[in-house]
Amino acid sequence: MKRYCIEFSYDGSDFCGYQVQPGLRTVQEELEKALKKINNNQSVISHASGRTDKGVHAYKQVAHFDLDVKISEAKLVRALNSNLPSDIHVYLAKEMAEDFHARYMVTSKAYVYKINLGAFNPMERKYVYQCGHPLDIKSMKKAIKYLIGTHDFRSFVSENKEKENCVRTITKAYIKQDPTDPERYDIFFEGTGFLKYQVRNMVGLLIKIGEKKIEPKEMQSVLISCDRNKAGKTAPAEGLYLLDVKYRK
Amino acid sequence: MKRYCIEFSYDGSDFCGYQVQPGLRTVQEELEKALKKINNNQSVISHASGRTDKGVHAYKQVAHFDLDVKISEAKLVRALNSNLPSDIHVYLAKEMAEDFHARYMVTSKAYVYKINLGAFNPMERKYVYQCGHPLDIKSMKKAIKYLIGTHDFRSFVSENKEKENCVRTITKAYIKQDPTDPERYDIFFEGTGFLKYQVRNMVGLLIKIGEKKIEPKEMQSVLISCDRNKAGKTAPAEGLYLLDVKYRK
Repeated sequence: MKRYCIEFSYDGSDFCGYQVQPGLRTVQEELEKALKKINNNQSVISHASGRTDKGVHAYKQVAHFDLDVKISEAKLVRALNSNLPSDIHVYLAKEMAEDFHARYMVTSKAYVYKINLGAFNPMERKYVYQCGHPLDIKSMKKAIKYLIGTHDFRSFVSENKEKENCVRTITKAYIKQDPTDPERYDIFFEGTGFLKYQVRNMVGLLIKIGEKKIEPKEMQSVLISCDRNKAGKTAPAEGLYLLDVKYRK
Repeated sequence: MKRYCIEFSYDGSDFCGYQVQPGLRTVQEELEKALKKINNNQSVISHASGRTDKGVHAYKQVAHFDLDVKISEAKLVRALNSNLPSDIHVYLAKEMAEDFHARYMVTSKAYVYKINLGAFNPMERKYVYQCGHPLDIKSMKKAIKYLIGTHDFRSFVSENKEKENCVRTITKAYIKQDPTDPERYDIFFEGTGFLKYQVRNMVGLLIKIGEKKIEPKEMQSVLISCDRNKAGKTAPAEGLYLLDVKYRK
């Protein structure tokens, strides 16, 4: 028995999210089907850094699993890619200590949310949120700063989470214009962890501010209110990418 | 009866090419289905600047058609987009003189072919040719220059075209590195017209040159030979985009 961890990317468009759900196509199920083939047809359970929702993409996702067979890191990458569908791509495999855990040892995660304010591009309909109208980026840049720090992010959690601890720390949050296309923006978030729909709900409120429906400082009021009804709409899944996952050394 | 011309873009991934083929999903069929709805349920025949093959995309395609109903240009754009699937997007409509023809009046067309030499990106598997290994771009830049000018492009036509006139003029052909990603390149072609598979076959030979299997000057020998067997493989459809269509004023 040997523990491995892999880094991989996937196109979330044709998946019903990351986590196994009977009867639905998920990233985890495709990964475990491929792992089973490599593991002499013995089932393998994998543990990812966290889930991603339906339609959300990953530039870098991390998962660990134990294999009965001994296989080199390079061979594992090749064997996985030849058994996985083309919307999942493994680019790194590492042998790990047997106590490594891809979920519990995460120290930080980063997401990027992509917005196109310009003309609708059908090639990107599954990969960028095509907002279709201008946004006041200056106001959004002011507002996003209120999110940095340690806060109770209850206002940005879609489900009823009354009992759950919603305190998280956001270490970085900023908006960057695409250097080659002035109508495209990337919204970055890095933090200790993110709750279900948190990023998309924070982006939803940023968009509402960009549409000048509310003032930038309302970001702070909504955050303090701990009331989901005060925040905006959940931004569409297609703009969101898991960008990075970091672990303690 | 009024003649209109539209400019539109489409994602070729889920189409069996542009032209109507019974039982298959094509761009033309989707367009004509939407036009019929707008035209009081009377069938409309459309004429595009030319076909694109299965999996090939368009940033700008042009088509003309006649409508029985009178509709403003702006309304026609909105009506088409609300009746078209999301992988086709109309961004301009113009009323035209009744002798305008979207195919016969073309003066030039431009294509771009996108290549990624870096790590495989599953999000782009339908939108860029992911070559998976380095290419000698310097040699490709030398070779592409031989294509500029008026030549018999018979060597780059896949089907048996012995009787057809394969003389065309390429006015521009060059390779450009992506300013934000040094492992990405765009190969541009502009000319009076292109034959079926011509661009993908020219790119196929450029790739063979980039792989150092043959010298850059072989581009000229292949061109002069007028022998399809001398050229390389046809480059995959997913990297190719119809970029522009120009008409005489």
